[in-house]
Amino acid sequence: MIDRISILGTGLLGASVGLALRKAGFQGRIVGWNRSSEQARLALEMGAIDEIAADPIEAARTSQVTLLAVPIFATLDFMEKLAPVLGSDHLATDVARTNRMLSEAATRLYNRPERASFLPGHPMAGKERGGAALADADLFRGAVWLFTDDPGAVRSQDGWQVIKEWRNLVAAIGAKTLDLDAARHDELVAWVSHLPQFTATALSALLEEEVGAAPELKHVGGRALREMTRLGASPFSMWRDIAHTNTEAVEHALLALEQRLAYIRENLRTPALREEFEQANRFRRE
Amino acid sequence: MIDRISILGTGLLGASVGLALRKAGFQGRIVGWNRSSEQARLALEMGAIDEIAADPIEAARTSQVTLLAVPIFATLDFMEKLAPVLGSDHLATDVARTNRMLSEAATRLYNRPERASFLPGHPMAGKERGGAALADADLFRGAVWLFTDDPGAVRSQDGWQVIKEWRNLVAAIGAKTLDLDAARHDELVAWVSHLPQFTATALSALLEEEVGAAPELKHVGGRALREMTRLGASPFSMWRDIAHTNTEAVEHALLALEQRLAYIRENLRTPALREEFEQANRFRRE
Repeated sequence: MIDRISILGTGLLGASVGLALRKAGFQGRIVGWNRSSEQARLALEMGAIDEIAADPIEAARTSQVTLLAVPIFATLDFMEKLAPVLGSDHLATDVARTNRMLSEAATRLYNRPERASFLPGHPMAGKERGGAALADADLFRGAVWLFTDDPGAVRSQDGWQVIKEWRNLVAAIGAKTLDLDAARHDELVAWVSHLPQFTATALSALLEEEVGAAPELKHVGGRALREMTRLGASPFSMWRDIAHTNTEAVEHALLALEQRLAYIRENLRTPALREEFEQANRFRRE
Repeated sequence: MIDRISILGTGLLGASVGLALRKAGFQGRIVGWNRSSEQARLALEMGAIDEIAADPIEAARTSQVTLLAVPIFATLDFMEKLAPVLGSDHLATDVARTNRMLSEAATRLYNRPERASFLPGHPMAGKERGGAALADADLFRGAVWLFTDDPGAVRSQDGWQVIKEWRNLVAAIGAKTLDLDAARHDELVAWVSHLPQFTATALSALLEEEVGAAPELKHVGGRALREMTRLGASPFSMWRDIAHTNTEAVEHALLALEQRLAYIRENLRTPALREEFEQANRFRRE
Protein backbone atom coordinates (compact mmCIF):
# COMPACT_ATOMS: atom_id res chain seq x y z
CA MET A 1 0.00 0.00 0.00
CA ILE A 2 1.25 3.49 -0.90
CA ASP A 3 1.92 5.34 2.34
CA ARG A 4 4.44 7.96 1.26
CA ILE A 5 4.24 10.15 -1.84
CA SER A 6 6.70 12.85 -2.83
CA ILE A 7 5.53 15.70 -4.98
CA LEU A 8 8.43 17.41 -6.72
CA GLY A 9 7.09 20.76 -7.82
CA THR A 10 4.35 22.20 -5.62
CA GLY A 11 2.88 24.67 -8.12
CA LEU A 12 -0.72 24.63 -9.28
CA LEU A 13 -0.83 20.98 -10.34
CA GLY A 14 1.45 19.52 -7.68
CA ALA A 15 -0.27 21.30 -4.81
CA SER A 16 -3.71 20.48 -6.25
CA VAL A 17 -2.81 16.78 -6.32
CA GLY A 18 -1.76 17.02 -2.67
CA LEU A 19 -5.01 18.72 -1.67
CA ALA A 20 -7.08 16.30 -3.75
CA LEU A 21 -5.37 13.23 -2.26
CA ARG A 22 -6.05 14.54 1.21
CA LYS A 23 -9.69 15.29 0.39
CA ALA A 24 -10.08 11.79 -1.08
CA GLY A 25 -8.98 10.32 2.24
CA PHE A 26 -5.39 9.36 1.44
CA GLN A 27 -3.89 8.46 4.82
CA GLY A 28 -0.18 8.36 3.98
CA ARG A 29 2.43 11.08 4.20
CA ILE A 30 2.93 13.65 1.43
CA VAL A 31 6.38 15.19 1.10
CA GLY A 32 6.84 18.22 -1.09
CA TRP A 33 9.71 20.02 -2.73
CA ASN A 34 9.85 23.08 -4.93
CA ARG A 35 12.70 24.98 -6.58
CA SER A 36 11.20 28.15 -5.10
CA SER A 37 10.95 27.57 -1.37
CA GLU A 38 8.13 30.12 -1.18
CA GLN A 39 5.84 27.88 -3.28
CA ALA A 40 6.74 24.92 -1.07
CA ARG A 41 5.91 26.89 2.08
CA LEU A 42 2.61 27.98 0.57
CA ALA A 43 1.74 24.36 -0.28
CA LEU A 44 2.60 23.35 3.29
CA GLU A 45 0.43 26.09 4.76
CA MET A 46 -2.49 25.06 2.55
CA GLY A 47 -2.19 21.47 3.73
CA ALA A 48 -1.25 20.21 0.26
CA ILE A 49 1.89 18.60 1.71
CA ASP A 50 2.85 17.44 5.21
CA GLU A 51 6.49 18.43 5.11
CA ILE A 52 9.02 20.18 2.92
CA ALA A 53 11.90 18.02 1.71
CA ALA A 54 15.35 19.58 1.72
CA ASP A 55 16.59 17.23 -1.00
CA PRO A 56 14.21 16.12 -3.78
CA ILE A 57 16.26 13.04 -4.68
CA GLU A 58 16.26 11.82 -1.09
CA ALA A 59 12.52 12.57 -0.80
CA ALA A 60 11.86 10.44 -3.88
CA ARG A 61 14.13 7.63 -2.67
CA THR A 62 12.18 7.29 0.58
CA SER A 63 8.69 7.35 -1.02
CA GLN A 64 6.82 4.72 -3.01
CA VAL A 65 5.50 7.21 -5.53
CA THR A 66 7.15 10.33 -6.89
CA LEU A 67 5.02 12.79 -8.81
CA LEU A 68 7.09 15.07 -11.02
CA ALA A 69 5.05 18.25 -11.32
CA VAL A 70 7.64 20.48 -12.96
CA PRO A 71 8.07 21.72 -16.58
CA ILE A 72 8.91 19.13 -19.24
CA PHE A 73 12.67 19.70 -19.42
CA ALA A 74 12.94 19.67 -15.62
CA THR A 75 10.91 16.44 -15.67
CA LEU A 76 13.41 14.85 -18.08
CA ASP A 77 16.25 16.03 -15.87
CA PHE A 78 14.69 14.46 -12.76
CA MET A 79 14.08 11.23 -14.68
CA GLU A 80 17.82 10.97 -15.35
CA LYS A 81 18.77 11.74 -11.76
CA LEU A 82 16.19 9.48 -10.13
CA ALA A 83 16.59 6.35 -12.28
CA PRO A 84 19.78 5.16 -10.55
CA VAL A 85 18.53 5.72 -7.00
CA LEU A 86 14.96 4.38 -7.08
CA GLY A 87 14.13 0.76 -6.24
CA SER A 88 12.10 -1.66 -8.36
CA ASP A 89 9.03 -1.14 -6.15
CA HIS A 90 9.05 2.61 -6.86
CA LEU A 91 6.79 4.45 -9.27
CA ALA A 92 7.70 7.79 -10.78
CA THR A 93 5.08 9.61 -12.82
CA ASP A 94 4.49 13.15 -14.09
CA VAL A 95 2.00 15.80 -15.17
CA ALA A 96 3.80 17.20 -18.23
CA ARG A 97 1.54 17.78 -21.20
CA THR A 98 3.53 16.20 -24.02
CA ASN A 99 4.51 12.58 -23.69
CA ARG A 100 6.62 11.23 -26.56
CA MET A 101 9.95 12.51 -25.18
CA LEU A 102 9.08 11.30 -21.68
CA SER A 103 8.04 7.92 -23.04
CA GLU A 104 11.38 7.54 -24.77
CA ALA A 105 13.24 8.41 -21.56
CA ALA A 106 11.00 6.04 -19.60
CA THR A 107 11.84 3.15 -21.93
CA ARG A 108 15.54 3.98 -21.79
CA LEU A 109 15.84 4.50 -18.01
CA TYR A 110 12.92 2.69 -16.32
CA ASN A 111 10.44 -0.13 -16.77
CA ARG A 112 12.69 -3.18 -16.49
CA PRO A 113 12.28 -5.71 -13.70
CA GLU A 114 15.26 -4.50 -11.65
CA ARG A 115 14.46 -0.84 -12.15
CA ALA A 116 11.81 1.57 -10.96
CA SER A 117 8.65 2.08 -12.99
CA PHE A 118 7.84 5.26 -14.85
CA LEU A 119 4.29 5.92 -16.00
CA PRO A 120 3.96 9.00 -18.25
CA GLY A 121 0.69 10.75 -17.62
CA HIS A 122 -1.04 14.03 -16.99
CA PRO A 123 -4.42 15.50 -16.20
CA MET A 124 -6.29 17.55 -18.80
CA ALA A 125 -6.88 20.24 -16.23
CA GLY A 126 -5.29 23.52 -15.30
CA LYS A 127 -5.91 27.19 -14.92
CA GLU A 128 -4.86 30.24 -16.88
CA ARG A 129 -2.20 30.94 -14.25
CA GLY A 130 0.09 28.68 -12.28
CA GLY A 131 1.27 28.69 -8.68
CA ALA A 132 0.31 26.97 -5.45
CA ALA A 133 -1.95 29.87 -4.47
CA LEU A 134 -4.53 28.75 -7.06
CA ALA A 135 -4.34 25.05 -6.07
CA ASP A 136 -7.73 23.38 -5.81
CA ALA A 137 -8.70 19.99 -4.37
CA ASP A 138 -11.43 19.69 -7.02
CA LEU A 139 -9.29 20.60 -10.02
CA PHE A 140 -9.35 17.04 -11.37
CA ARG A 141 -13.00 16.25 -10.71
CA GLY A 142 -14.48 15.11 -14.03
CA ALA A 143 -11.24 15.78 -15.92
CA VAL A 144 -9.52 13.15 -18.04
CA TRP A 145 -6.12 11.91 -16.80
CA LEU A 146 -4.14 10.47 -19.69
CA PHE A 147 -1.54 7.72 -19.37
CA THR A 148 0.82 6.64 -22.13
CA ASP A 149 2.49 3.58 -20.70
CA ASP A 150 5.15 1.72 -22.68
CA PRO A 151 3.45 -1.42 -24.05
CA GLY A 152 6.83 -3.19 -23.83
CA ALA A 153 7.40 -2.37 -20.14
CA VAL A 154 8.57 -5.36 -18.09
CA ARG A 155 8.17 -4.77 -14.37
CA SER A 156 8.50 -6.50 -11.05
CA GLN A 157 5.27 -7.55 -9.37
CA ASP A 158 5.75 -4.68 -6.89
CA GLY A 159 6.11 -2.33 -9.83
CA TRP A 160 2.75 -3.37 -11.32
CA GLN A 161 1.15 -3.22 -7.90
CA VAL A 162 2.20 0.36 -7.18
CA ILE A 163 0.98 1.44 -10.64
CA LYS A 164 -2.40 -0.13 -9.93
CA GLU A 165 -2.62 1.70 -6.62
CA TRP A 166 -1.60 5.02 -8.19
CA ARG A 167 -4.29 4.59 -10.87
CA ASN A 168 -6.79 4.02 -8.08
CA LEU A 169 -5.68 7.22 -6.36
CA VAL A 170 -6.06 9.19 -9.60
CA ALA A 171 -9.61 7.83 -9.89
CA ALA A 172 -10.22 8.66 -6.23
CA ILE A 173 -9.41 12.34 -6.80
CA GLY A 174 -12.15 12.42 -9.41
CA ALA A 175 -10.29 12.02 -12.72
CA LYS A 176 -11.25 9.63 -15.52
CA THR A 177 -8.18 7.72 -16.64
CA LEU A 178 -7.61 7.05 -20.34
CA ASP A 179 -4.71 5.08 -21.83
CA LEU A 180 -3.23 6.14 -25.17
CA ASP A 181 -0.28 5.33 -27.35
CA ALA A 182 2.39 8.02 -26.73
CA ALA A 183 2.71 9.24 -30.33
CA ARG A 184 -1.06 9.24 -30.81
CA HIS A 185 -1.32 11.13 -27.51
CA ASP A 186 0.85 13.98 -28.71
CA GLU A 187 -1.14 14.29 -31.93
CA LEU A 188 -4.43 14.19 -30.08
CA VAL A 189 -3.52 16.88 -27.54
CA ALA A 190 -2.18 19.02 -30.40
CA TRP A 191 -5.75 18.99 -31.79
CA VAL A 192 -7.89 19.23 -28.68
CA SER A 193 -5.66 21.25 -26.35
CA HIS A 194 -2.68 22.93 -27.99
CA LEU A 195 -4.53 24.16 -31.10
CA PRO A 196 -7.31 25.80 -29.07
CA GLN A 197 -4.66 27.52 -26.91
CA PHE A 198 -2.61 28.89 -29.80
CA THR A 199 -5.82 29.94 -31.57
CA ALA A 200 -6.95 31.91 -28.52
CA THR A 201 -3.47 33.46 -28.26
CA ALA A 202 -3.51 34.46 -31.94
CA LEU A 203 -7.04 35.87 -31.72
CA SER A 204 -6.30 37.81 -28.52
CA ALA A 205 -3.01 39.20 -29.83
CA LEU A 206 -4.71 40.27 -33.06
CA LEU A 207 -7.62 41.92 -31.25
CA GLU A 208 -5.24 43.73 -28.90
CA GLU A 209 -3.72 45.28 -32.02
CA GLU A 210 -7.08 46.13 -33.59
CA VAL A 211 -9.23 47.29 -30.68
CA GLY A 212 -6.83 47.33 -27.71
CA ALA A 213 -6.53 51.10 -27.83
CA ALA A 214 -10.28 51.46 -27.16
CA PRO A 215 -10.91 49.20 -24.17
CA GLU A 216 -14.65 49.97 -24.06
CA LEU A 217 -14.96 48.20 -27.40
CA LYS A 218 -13.76 44.91 -25.90
CA HIS A 219 -17.01 44.76 -23.97
CA VAL A 220 -19.02 45.00 -27.17
CA GLY A 221 -18.12 41.38 -27.92
CA GLY A 222 -19.91 40.04 -24.85
CA ARG A 223 -19.76 36.47 -23.61
CA ALA A 224 -18.75 34.96 -26.96
CA LEU A 225 -15.64 37.12 -27.20
CA ARG A 226 -14.76 36.56 -23.54
CA GLU A 227 -14.87 32.80 -24.00
CA MET A 228 -12.94 32.79 -27.26
CA THR A 229 -10.13 34.86 -25.71
CA ARG A 230 -10.08 33.59 -22.12
CA LEU A 231 -7.10 31.34 -22.88
CA GLY A 232 -5.33 34.43 -24.20
CA ALA A 233 -4.46 35.09 -20.56
CA SER A 234 -2.32 31.92 -20.40
CA PRO A 235 1.27 32.79 -19.58
CA PHE A 236 4.01 31.95 -22.05
CA SER A 237 5.87 30.05 -19.32
CA MET A 238 3.16 27.37 -19.31
CA TRP A 239 3.30 26.84 -23.10
CA ARG A 240 6.94 27.32 -24.06
CA ASP A 241 7.86 23.69 -23.37
CA ILE A 242 4.84 22.42 -25.28
CA ALA A 243 5.78 24.56 -28.28
CA HIS A 244 9.31 23.13 -28.06
CA THR A 245 8.44 19.47 -27.54
CA ASN A 246 5.31 18.98 -29.64
CA THR A 247 6.33 21.32 -32.44
CA GLU A 248 5.53 19.18 -35.45
CA ALA A 249 2.05 18.15 -34.34
CA VAL A 250 1.19 21.75 -33.40
CA GLU A 251 2.53 23.07 -36.72
CA HIS A 252 0.38 20.55 -38.54
CA ALA A 253 -2.74 21.52 -36.58
CA LEU A 254 -2.14 25.28 -37.00
CA LEU A 255 -1.64 24.93 -40.75
CA ALA A 256 -4.87 22.94 -41.00
CA LEU A 257 -6.77 25.69 -39.17
CA GLU A 258 -5.25 28.40 -41.38
CA GLN A 259 -6.49 26.50 -44.43
CA ARG A 260 -9.93 26.04 -42.90
CA LEU A 261 -10.23 29.76 -42.16
CA ALA A 262 -9.11 30.58 -45.70
CA TYR A 263 -11.74 28.20 -47.06
CA ILE A 264 -14.45 29.97 -45.05
CA ARG A 265 -13.11 33.37 -46.12
CA GLU A 266 -13.30 32.35 -49.79
CA ASN A 267 -16.81 30.96 -49.37
CA LEU A 268 -18.62 33.63 -47.33
CA ARG A 269 -21.17 33.96 -50.14
CA THR A 270 -21.26 30.39 -51.46
CA PRO A 271 -23.23 27.29 -50.35
CA ALA A 272 -20.00 25.82 -48.96
CA LEU A 273 -20.40 28.08 -45.91
CA ARG A 274 -23.55 26.20 -44.91
CA GLU A 275 -21.61 22.91 -45.03
CA GLU A 276 -18.91 24.34 -42.77
CA PHE A 277 -21.52 25.40 -40.21
CA GLU A 278 -23.21 22.00 -40.40
CA GLN A 279 -19.90 20.18 -39.91
CA ALA A 280 -19.15 22.43 -36.90
CA ASN A 281 -22.65 21.75 -35.52
CA ARG A 282 -21.93 18.00 -35.68
CA PHE A 283 -18.85 18.42 -33.49
CA ARG A 284 -20.95 20.02 -30.79
CA ARG A 285 -23.62 17.34 -30.84
CA GLU A 286 -23.13 14.72 -28.14
CA MET B 1 -44.97 58.62 -23.93
CA ILE B 2 -44.61 55.29 -25.76
CA ASP B 3 -47.70 53.24 -24.99
CA ARG B 4 -47.81 50.84 -27.93
CA ILE B 5 -44.88 48.88 -29.38
CA SER B 6 -45.04 46.39 -32.22
CA ILE B 7 -42.46 43.66 -32.42
CA LEU B 8 -42.21 42.24 -35.94
CA GLY B 9 -40.43 38.91 -35.52
CA THR B 10 -41.03 37.19 -32.19
CA GLY B 11 -38.04 34.85 -32.26
CA LEU B 12 -35.31 34.79 -29.62
CA LEU B 13 -34.50 38.52 -29.70
CA GLY B 14 -37.99 39.86 -30.37
CA ALA B 15 -39.63 37.78 -27.65
CA SER B 16 -36.78 38.54 -25.23
CA VAL B 17 -37.31 42.28 -25.75
CA GLY B 18 -41.03 41.80 -25.01
CA LEU B 19 -40.31 39.86 -21.81
CA ALA B 20 -37.61 42.34 -20.76
CA LEU B 21 -39.87 45.37 -21.34
CA ARG B 22 -42.56 43.76 -19.23
CA LYS B 23 -40.10 42.89 -16.47
CA ALA B 24 -38.76 46.46 -16.52
CA GLY B 25 -42.27 47.73 -15.83
CA PHE B 26 -43.30 48.94 -19.30
CA GLN B 27 -47.03 49.62 -18.97
CA GLY B 28 -48.02 49.97 -22.63
CA ARG B 29 -49.31 47.40 -25.05
CA ILE B 30 -46.99 45.08 -26.98
CA VAL B 31 -48.24 43.74 -30.30
CA GLY B 32 -46.37 40.91 -31.97
CA TRP B 33 -46.20 39.40 -35.43
CA ASN B 34 -44.19 36.52 -36.81
CA ARG B 35 -43.98 34.91 -40.24
CA SER B 36 -44.43 31.55 -38.50
CA SER B 37 -47.63 31.81 -36.48
CA GLU B 38 -46.36 29.12 -34.11
CA GLN B 39 -43.54 31.41 -32.89
CA ALA B 40 -46.04 34.24 -32.43
CA ARG B 41 -48.34 31.99 -30.38
CA LEU B 42 -45.41 30.86 -28.25
CA ALA B 43 -44.42 34.49 -27.59
CA LEU B 44 -48.03 35.26 -26.62
CA GLU B 45 -48.18 32.28 -24.25
CA MET B 46 -44.91 33.35 -22.58
CA GLY B 47 -46.27 36.85 -22.02
CA ALA B 48 -43.69 38.43 -24.37
CA ILE B 49 -46.53 40.07 -26.35
CA ASP B 50 -50.11 41.01 -25.46
CA GLU B 51 -51.67 40.19 -28.80
CA ILE B 52 -50.84 38.76 -32.19
CA ALA B 53 -51.22 41.14 -35.11
CA ALA B 54 -52.77 39.77 -38.28
CA ASP B 55 -51.05 42.38 -40.44
CA PRO B 56 -47.52 43.58 -39.54
CA ILE B 57 -47.85 46.83 -41.53
CA GLU B 58 -51.06 47.75 -39.77
CA ALA B 59 -49.55 46.81 -36.39
CA ALA B 60 -46.61 49.14 -37.06
CA ARG B 61 -48.87 51.95 -38.28
CA THR B 62 -50.85 51.93 -35.04
CA SER B 63 -47.80 51.82 -32.69
CA GLN B 64 -45.31 54.53 -31.76
CA VAL B 65 -42.35 52.17 -31.97
CA THR B 66 -41.78 49.24 -34.31
CA LEU B 67 -38.98 46.83 -33.51
CA LEU B 68 -37.89 44.83 -36.55
CA ALA B 69 -36.52 41.59 -35.14
CA VAL B 70 -36.17 39.62 -38.37
CA PRO B 71 -33.12 38.70 -40.52
CA ILE B 72 -31.29 41.51 -42.29
CA PHE B 73 -32.86 41.15 -45.72
CA ALA B 74 -36.34 40.91 -44.21
CA THR B 75 -35.51 44.03 -42.19
CA LEU B 76 -34.63 45.92 -45.38
CA ASP B 77 -37.85 44.71 -46.95
CA PHE B 78 -39.93 45.97 -44.00
CA MET B 79 -38.09 49.30 -44.10
CA GLU B 80 -39.26 49.79 -47.68
CA LYS B 81 -42.84 48.80 -46.93
CA LEU B 82 -43.18 50.78 -43.70
CA ALA B 83 -41.61 54.08 -44.80
CA PRO B 84 -44.69 55.30 -46.73
CA VAL B 85 -47.21 54.40 -44.02
CA LEU B 86 -45.53 55.56 -40.79
CA GLY B 87 -46.04 59.06 -39.39
CA SER B 88 -43.35 61.54 -38.39
CA ASP B 89 -43.84 60.71 -34.70
CA HIS B 90 -43.05 57.02 -35.33
CA LEU B 91 -39.77 55.26 -34.61
CA ALA B 92 -38.72 52.08 -36.37
CA THR B 93 -35.61 50.31 -35.15
CA ASP B 94 -34.06 46.87 -35.52
CA VAL B 95 -31.82 44.19 -34.04
CA ALA B 96 -29.88 43.12 -37.16
CA ARG B 97 -26.18 42.66 -36.58
CA THR B 98 -24.70 44.55 -39.52
CA ASN B 99 -25.62 48.17 -39.95
CA ARG B 100 -24.12 49.83 -43.02
CA MET B 101 -26.83 48.63 -45.42
CA LEU B 102 -29.56 49.52 -42.94
CA SER B 103 -28.05 52.93 -42.38
CA GLU B 104 -28.08 53.63 -46.10
CA ALA B 105 -31.74 52.59 -46.31
CA ALA B 106 -32.55 54.68 -43.24
CA THR B 107 -31.01 57.79 -44.83
CA ARG B 108 -32.82 57.14 -48.11
CA LEU B 109 -36.29 56.34 -46.65
CA TYR B 110 -36.49 57.87 -43.15
CA ASN B 111 -35.08 60.58 -40.94
CA ARG B 112 -36.51 63.70 -42.54
CA PRO B 113 -38.90 66.01 -40.68
CA GLU B 114 -42.03 64.79 -42.48
CA ARG B 115 -41.05 61.11 -42.29
CA ALA B 116 -40.76 58.50 -39.60
CA SER B 117 -37.46 58.01 -37.78
CA PHE B 118 -35.30 54.94 -38.18
CA LEU B 119 -32.59 54.20 -35.64
CA PRO B 120 -30.33 51.28 -36.65
CA GLY B 121 -29.26 49.32 -33.61
CA HIS B 122 -28.87 45.92 -32.06
CA PRO B 123 -27.94 44.22 -28.82
CA MET B 124 -24.64 42.29 -28.55
CA ALA B 125 -26.52 39.39 -27.05
CA GLY B 126 -27.92 36.13 -28.28
CA LYS B 127 -27.81 32.41 -27.85
CA GLU B 128 -26.43 29.59 -29.96
CA ARG B 129 -29.96 28.82 -31.13
CA GLY B 130 -32.87 31.04 -32.04
CA GLY B 131 -36.59 30.80 -31.42
CA ALA B 132 -39.07 32.21 -28.93
CA ALA B 133 -38.75 29.12 -26.72
CA LEU B 134 -35.32 30.34 -25.54
CA ALA B 135 -36.44 33.93 -24.95
CA ASP B 136 -35.17 35.41 -21.71
CA ALA B 137 -36.14 38.63 -19.92
CA ASP B 138 -32.53 38.99 -18.70
CA LEU B 139 -30.84 38.42 -22.06
CA PHE B 140 -29.78 42.08 -22.36
CA ARG B 141 -28.70 42.63 -18.77
CA GLY B 142 -25.12 43.95 -18.90
CA ALA B 143 -24.94 43.58 -22.70
CA VAL B 144 -24.02 46.45 -25.00
CA TRP B 145 -26.75 47.77 -27.31
CA LEU B 146 -25.21 49.53 -30.28
CA PHE B 147 -26.82 52.37 -32.21
CA THR B 148 -25.54 53.78 -35.48
CA ASP B 149 -27.72 56.79 -36.06
CA ASP B 150 -27.29 58.93 -39.15
CA PRO B 151 -25.42 62.09 -38.04
CA GLY B 152 -27.28 63.98 -40.78
CA ALA B 153 -30.77 62.92 -39.64
CA VAL B 154 -33.26 65.79 -39.48
CA ARG B 155 -36.34 64.90 -37.44
CA SER B 156 -39.49 66.40 -36.06
CA GLN B 157 -39.52 67.16 -32.35
CA ASP B 158 -41.80 64.12 -31.86
CA GLY B 159 -39.25 61.99 -33.71
CA TRP B 160 -36.42 62.99 -31.36
CA GLN B 161 -38.70 62.52 -28.37
CA VAL B 162 -39.66 58.94 -29.24
CA ILE B 163 -35.98 58.08 -29.88
CA LYS B 164 -35.09 59.43 -26.44
CA GLU B 165 -37.83 57.33 -24.85
CA TRP B 166 -36.78 54.20 -26.73
CA ARG B 167 -33.17 54.69 -25.57
CA ASN B 168 -34.48 54.93 -22.03
CA LEU B 169 -36.39 51.66 -22.46
CA VAL B 170 -33.26 49.93 -23.79
CA ALA B 171 -31.39 51.11 -20.71
CA ALA B 172 -34.30 49.98 -18.52
CA ILE B 173 -34.01 46.39 -19.80
CA GLY B 174 -30.40 46.37 -18.58
CA ALA B 175 -28.38 47.13 -21.74
CA LYS B 176 -25.59 49.68 -22.01
CA THR B 177 -26.12 51.83 -25.09
CA LEU B 178 -23.16 52.81 -27.26
CA ASP B 179 -23.27 55.04 -30.35
CA LEU B 180 -21.00 54.32 -33.28
CA ASP B 181 -20.50 55.44 -36.84
CA ALA B 182 -22.17 52.85 -39.11
CA ALA B 183 -19.09 51.92 -41.17
CA ARG B 184 -16.90 51.76 -38.05
CA HIS B 185 -19.61 49.63 -36.45
CA ASP B 186 -19.44 46.99 -39.15
CA GLU B 187 -15.64 46.83 -38.93
CA LEU B 188 -15.75 46.62 -35.15
CA VAL B 189 -18.29 43.80 -34.98
CA ALA B 190 -16.31 41.96 -37.67
CA TRP B 191 -13.42 41.93 -35.17
CA VAL B 192 -15.15 41.34 -31.86
CA SER B 193 -18.15 39.25 -32.91
CA HIS B 194 -18.02 37.85 -36.44
CA LEU B 195 -14.35 36.79 -36.36
CA PRO B 196 -14.77 34.85 -33.07
CA GLN B 197 -17.83 33.10 -34.55
CA PHE B 198 -16.17 32.07 -37.82
CA THR B 199 -13.07 31.01 -35.89
CA ALA B 200 -15.13 28.73 -33.64
CA THR B 201 -16.92 27.35 -36.71
CA ALA B 202 -13.60 26.64 -38.46
CA LEU B 203 -12.08 25.06 -35.35
CA SER B 204 -15.15 22.90 -34.67
CA ALA B 205 -15.46 21.78 -38.31
CA LEU B 206 -11.75 20.89 -38.37
CA LEU B 207 -11.92 18.95 -35.09
CA GLU B 208 -15.03 17.10 -36.25
CA GLU B 209 -12.91 15.86 -39.16
CA GLU B 210 -9.90 14.98 -36.99
CA VAL B 211 -11.41 13.49 -33.84
CA GLY B 212 -15.16 13.33 -34.58
CA ALA B 213 -15.01 9.59 -35.20
CA ALA B 214 -13.82 9.02 -31.62
CA PRO B 215 -16.27 11.00 -29.48
CA GLU B 216 -14.58 10.03 -26.20
CA LEU B 217 -11.56 12.05 -27.33
CA LYS B 218 -13.59 15.26 -27.43
CA HIS B 219 -13.79 15.11 -23.65
CA VAL B 220 -10.01 15.02 -23.38
CA GLY B 221 -9.94 18.72 -24.21
CA GLY B 222 -11.90 19.71 -21.13
CA ARG B 223 -13.25 23.18 -20.42
CA ALA B 224 -10.85 25.00 -22.73
CA LEU B 225 -11.99 23.02 -25.77
CA ARG B 226 -15.65 23.33 -24.80
CA GLU B 227 -15.36 27.11 -24.61
CA MET B 228 -13.40 27.46 -27.83
CA THR B 229 -15.98 25.42 -29.76
CA ARG B 230 -19.24 26.40 -28.04
CA LEU B 231 -20.07 28.85 -30.84
CA GLY B 232 -19.58 25.97 -33.27
CA ALA B 233 -23.17 25.05 -32.41
CA SER B 234 -24.45 28.30 -33.97
CA PRO B 235 -26.82 27.55 -36.84
CA PHE B 236 -25.96 28.72 -40.33
CA SER B 237 -29.33 30.47 -40.56
CA MET B 238 -28.21 33.02 -37.94
CA TRP B 239 -24.97 33.86 -39.77
CA ARG B 240 -25.77 33.64 -43.47
CA ASP B 241 -26.97 37.24 -43.67
CA ILE B 242 -23.94 38.51 -41.79
CA ALA B 243 -21.64 36.67 -44.17
CA HIS B 244 -23.55 38.24 -47.08
CA THR B 245 -23.78 41.80 -45.77
CA ASN B 246 -20.47 42.31 -43.94
CA THR B 247 -18.38 40.24 -46.33
CA GLU B 248 -15.45 42.58 -46.83
CA ALA B 249 -14.84 43.34 -43.17
CA VAL B 250 -15.10 39.64 -42.26
CA GLU B 251 -12.73 38.66 -45.09
CA HIS B 252 -10.24 41.20 -43.84
CA ALA B 253 -10.47 39.92 -40.25
CA LEU B 254 -10.21 36.26 -41.28
CA LEU B 255 -7.14 36.92 -43.41
CA ALA B 256 -5.50 38.76 -40.53
CA LEU B 257 -6.10 35.79 -38.22
CA GLU B 258 -4.74 33.35 -40.79
CA GLN B 259 -1.57 35.42 -40.96
CA ARG B 260 -1.33 35.60 -37.17
CA LEU B 261 -1.66 31.81 -36.86
CA ALA B 262 0.98 31.34 -39.56
CA TYR B 263 3.30 33.68 -37.68
CA ILE B 264 2.85 31.64 -34.49
CA ARG B 265 3.36 28.41 -36.44
CA GLU B 266 6.62 29.70 -37.89
CA ASN B 267 7.82 30.88 -34.48
CA LEU B 268 7.00 27.99 -32.14
CA ARG B 269 10.68 27.77 -31.21
CA THR B 270 11.72 31.42 -31.47
CA PRO B 271 11.52 34.31 -28.98
CA ALA B 272 8.69 35.83 -31.07
CA LEU B 273 6.31 33.32 -29.48
CA ARG B 274 6.81 34.95 -26.09
CA GLU B 275 5.85 38.32 -27.60
CA GLU B 276 2.65 36.85 -29.05
CA PHE B 277 1.67 35.47 -25.65
CA GLU B 278 2.46 38.78 -23.97
CA GLN B 279 0.40 40.71 -26.52
CA ALA B 280 -2.49 38.27 -25.97
CA ASN B 281 -2.12 38.66 -22.19
CA ARG B 282 -2.49 42.43 -22.59
CA PHE B 283 -5.84 41.99 -24.34
CA ARG B 284 -7.16 40.07 -21.36
CA ARG B 285 -6.02 42.62 -18.82
CA GLU B 286 -8.71 45.07 -17.76
